[in-house]
Amino acid sequence: MKVGFIGLGRMGVGMADNLLKAGHEVCLFNRTPAKAEPLVARGAQLAANVAAACRGDAVITMLADDDALRRLAFGPGGIVESLGRGAVHISSSTISVALAEELEAAHAAAGQKFVSAPVFGRPEAAAAGKLFVVAAGASQTLAELTPVFDAVGQKTFVVSDSPRTANLVKLSGNFLIASVIESLGEAIALVDKGGVDRNQYVDLLTSTLFGAPVYRTYGDLIAGRRFEPAGFAAVLGQKDIRLALSAAEALAVPLPLASLLRDRFLTLIAHGGGALDWSAIGDLASRDAGMNDQH
Amino acid sequence: MKVGFIGLGRMGVGMADNLLKAGHEVCLFNRTPAKAEPLVARGAQLAANVAAACRGDAVITMLADDDALRRLAFGPGGIVESLGRGAVHISSSTISVALAEELEAAHAAAGQKFVSAPVFGRPEAAAAGKLFVVAAGASQTLAELTPVFDAVGQKTFVVSDSPRTANLVKLSGNFLIASVIESLGEAIALVDKGGVDRNQYVDLLTSTLFGAPVYRTYGDLIAGRRFEPAGFAAVLGQKDIRLALSAAEALAVPLPLASLLRDRFLTLIAHGGGALDWSAIGDLASRDAGMNDQH
Amino acid sequence: MKVGFIGLGRMGVGMADNLLKAGHEVCLFNRTPAKAEPLVARGAQLAANVAAACRGDAVITMLADDDALRRLAFGPGGIVESLGRGAVHISSSTISVALAEELEAAHAAAGQKFVSAPVFGRPEAAAAGKLFVVAAGASQTLAELTPVFDAVGQKTFVVSDSPRTANLVKLSGNFLIASVIESLGEAIALVDKGGVDRNQYVDLLTSTLFGAPVYRTYGDLIAGRRFEPAGFAAVLGQKDIRLALSAAEALAVPLPLASLLRDRFLTLIAHGGGALDWSAIGDLASRDAGMNDQH
Amino acid sequence: MKVGFIGLGRMGVGMADNLLKAGHEVCLFNRTPAKAEPLVARGAQLAANVAAACRGDAVITMLADDDALRRLAFGPGGIVESLGRGAVHISSSTISVALAEELEAAHAAAGQKFVSAPVFGRPEAAAAGKLFVVAAGASQTLAELTPVFDAVGQKTFVVSDSPRTANLVKLSGNFLIASVIESLGEAIALVDKGGVDRNQYVDLLTSTLFGAPVYRTYGDLIAGRRFEPAGFAAVLGQKDIRLALSAAEALAVPLPLASLLRDRFLTLIAHGGGALDWSAIGDLASRDAGMNDQH
Repeated sequence: MKVGFIGLGRMGVGMADNLLKAGHEVCLFNRTPAKAEPLVARGAQLAANVAAACRGDAVITMLADDDALRRLAFGPGGIVESLGRGAVHISSSTISVALAEELEAAHAAAGQKFVSAPVFGRPEAAAAGKLFVVAAGASQTLAELTPVFDAVGQKTFVVSDSPRTANLVKLSGNFLIASVIESLGEAIALVDKGGVDRNQYVDLLTSTLFGAPVYRTYGDLIAGRRFEPAGFAAVLGQKDIRLALSAAEALAVPLPLASLLRDRFLTLIAHGGGALDWSAIGDLASRDAGMNDQH
Repeated sequence: MKVGFIGLGRMGVGMADNLLKAGHEVCLFNRTPAKAEPLVARGAQLAANVAAACRGDAVITMLADDDALRRLAFGPGGIVESLGRGAVHISSSTISVALAEELEAAHAAAGQKFVSAPVFGRPEAAAAGKLFVVAAGASQTLAELTPVFDAVGQKTFVVSDSPRTANLVKLSGNFLIASVIESLGEAIALVDKGGVDRNQYVDLLTSTLFGAPVYRTYGDLIAGRRFEPAGFAAVLGQKDIRLALSAAEALAVPLPLASLLRDRFLTLIAHGGGALDWSAIGDLASRDAGMNDQH
Repeated sequence: MKVGFIGLGRMGVGMADNLLKAGHEVCLFNRTPAKAEPLVARGAQLAANVAAACRGDAVITMLADDDALRRLAFGPGGIVESLGRGAVHISSSTISVALAEELEAAHAAAGQKFVSAPVFGRPEAAAAGKLFVVAAGASQTLAELTPVFDAVGQKTFVVSDSPRTANLVKLSGNFLIASVIESLGEAIALVDKGGVDRNQYVDLLTSTLFGAPVYRTYGDLIAGRRFEPAGFAAVLGQKDIRLALSAAEALAVPLPLASLLRDRFLTLIAHGGGALDWSAIGDLASRDAGMNDQH
Repeated sequence: MKVGFIGLGRMGVGMADNLLKAGHEVCLFNRTPAKAEPLVARGAQLAANVAAACRGDAVITMLADDDALRRLAFGPGGIVESLGRGAVHISSSTISVALAEELEAAHAAAGQKFVSAPVFGRPEAAAAGKLFVVAAGASQTLAELTPVFDAVGQKTFVVSDSPRTANLVKLSGNFLIASVIESLGEAIALVDKGGVDRNQYVDLLTSTLFGAPVYRTYGDLIAGRRFEPAGFAAVLGQKDIRLALSAAEALAVPLPLASLLRDRFLTLIAHGGGALDWSAIGDLASRDAGMNDQH
């Protein structure tokens, strides 16, 4: 397929690379074109602007947030204006449910297709083509995009024919991970202050009931207070919890644990920790327990 | 070793059986002696009272709660009065940190030893000798008890030389499981009300980021609203969260997520759900979102 | 002064009437002009459109929410386009801090002045000219507006020279009232389930420590479960808590009690109670305690 | 009446003094007898032990907590053993609902009467005889005690014939005050960080919607961060919230705001603030917002 790709951050680079490897014709656009160079060396084309990246069968966007996507999608020279009739916009960014709805409507009005296909996985998984793709949109369209999804991910989950539901699932996933961080943070504060070694405790948890990698990863970070460099910055975690709460508000679903997470992120940010790894909220329970003066 | 075993509930029966299989000489005491019969048929002795179960090298208690253990431990004919000098009381029940402290002091005053060795695992794991043992106490004593721990569990974690810390770790583990339930309950409410199939959502989670069995087990129960029969009753979950909060209060460790869980359990109990599986608190987010009228 | 007045809801009607009574020349605009008739009969002019209401020294807006004000303020024929150079826009609506910032910037760019002057008080206080005015803006401008504020309110509080701070104070006030509702709701649930008469309990509170009218008003509504007709609808309360949380997010101020209120409002709305008086969130503690089946 | 009075703390001294002034025959007991001297100089008798204070028609206890009362009430030479048949124990301490139940049963078994009569008011009100008395017990008994209640309080509220309900009401009252502190703390953090003067803000609140003295008192303390000396120590506040939560647990009433207060008190205590005035929890919202480094 002939695919445009917009957004060459840490995730996007790996995804675009795997599209190339799978034999797709890829046309890249990034705000700072330098990031595209290694991929151009391996056969990708470089688009001079957004419009130039929208001339294929599909264009994938992998951008930082709502604002970034909104800026490139709407307005003169934007994706909606530039994409061909019948072509499809695949939004893989973690964006709000509301923006997904707007995009669906705008593309439909322009005779184009729109699917949401956010992904689970960290940059290493993107580089290895081992992401999990959560896709939603018209089933015929999704079927046609199978070669694209297969190139970037190890498995694709179709959650519904309404694009925004994929965004909701993605946000719920980040909420679940943040919940793991909070619960580990509280448990570690409790046992540590009670006299148990933090690191040994995480070993115990992860070799018994909590074998999932998410517990190992975040348990180690919290126990060791290793919040730099950030794998995923706290400000991004805060944004995702905000988007989850916003979607929940629109659906009238109260989420008290998500509200707690919101307050944790704001506390962290208020103390200058926005650039730390989001697992740093897992240290706040220890801080509230007065345990951090020793460190 | 010559071991007394007090408390033949669903967990205790399997543990005592594995002690027998491992060649230990086991003397059982249970309030309702009938439960001991199958084990007596396989070679266990039956004690007429608590004191008679306290004549060996060690006595293991596996009882429902603080009250039950307190009743058998203290007072005339109780464990403290009956156990021989130098013998050891192994407490495997999920009890309060405060009671563990009391027992440690009482046994020390009586020239006896005390270790806490609560276990992680459900009745099937107890029957299979596959429990995880969390042990704390004097290291020499724990070393001598290795054959006992090996008989009931697949692995033993020594967390400290202070018995009560093992109880704290056990309570923290149940807090972590309840946190998984709450977070799944909120996530499922959110995506379900947003149009995603609940069961398919749990499949997605458990085949991607949340592969740990605890997510599979509780995700299925919550998505399918299958809260009967109870694997672990809500009233017991409520008790364990209360004990965790009580230990946290003594240590001055605020635990907002545990406080949320407390309120969830009370809500469930106030609506007559105390005998349901504790995962039923995972349905309260859906209830608050007004989604349960359809069912 | 020659004053435009836009927005003749239950509050606006009383405010405009008091401006007339104080001798100001008042030009009214309302979406449904019929509401202006009684005031026109008493000497007010009727503007055919927003622009016509912007020809005086000042224009006051008293609208339902951000959307309503945004629609009338910006765009062709809107307030910013229509107001004369040096004239002032007095925003008395309960709007977001963010919109106040936008308006301040837009009016400054157009050579106009902007002040925020939200009010505390219910429709009866508006009718009686007994509102409390919370004003913020350039001090010279505020001084010139004294006759306007004195006409609608019994007292004016100048909180800062930055307009948005008045909106923040207004939102914080509604947060405080909602907190009273929640705390009363929990206390009433507790003592009622414990065997104390709800109504007698509110009498006790309000004749001892909690003599402020806000306790009397809301205590009676909650104890008597009288949530219709709404004095202030739950959907508006939810909106104000959302705006408070949004302002708090921008300032990185975690507000756990406001988060709890958010969840309470969403629960109420999810059960179809959005049109009830906002004190109906004070019944949710009783509901969670299983007490509402009897009613 | 011939009345024993046990517990001459800051509250008890004023209450006993007013009993004397009203003409009652008062027999005092206090752990440190020196505190009784001024009252003895004004005509009170001094009891050598608890039993000696229990020889009249009634004995009033005004002690620090459950433990103190339990120690004096039960066991050899205690109140239950010493009080005459038909005499009445008036418990005015802020104690648990559970202990009130125990005392009711113990006194009934001993052929004695028991009423709960906790009070609202600070030491100055106790000294002035201006307390509010919350009384519960057999109506005949309460009627006979009218002269006692009238001596110490300005008004008596009878809440039920079950003594423990008065303790529940007292605990709920302290919960409501702590809720005011928390809500003010959050509101002050929000507006202060947004650029509004904290002290001026409290003036605004207390001269508009929140005229009750409780807002003035605690608003000033929080805005000015004046938490020493303590009018009511944080550890006592924490105890009362614990008792309220414990009563709520027994009744299956979830109280999320009380849970938040619990965590606030534990945070304060964990940072060494247990001896501060309980309004110091009102500074934690500012602390979480990163605002306290400047002070």
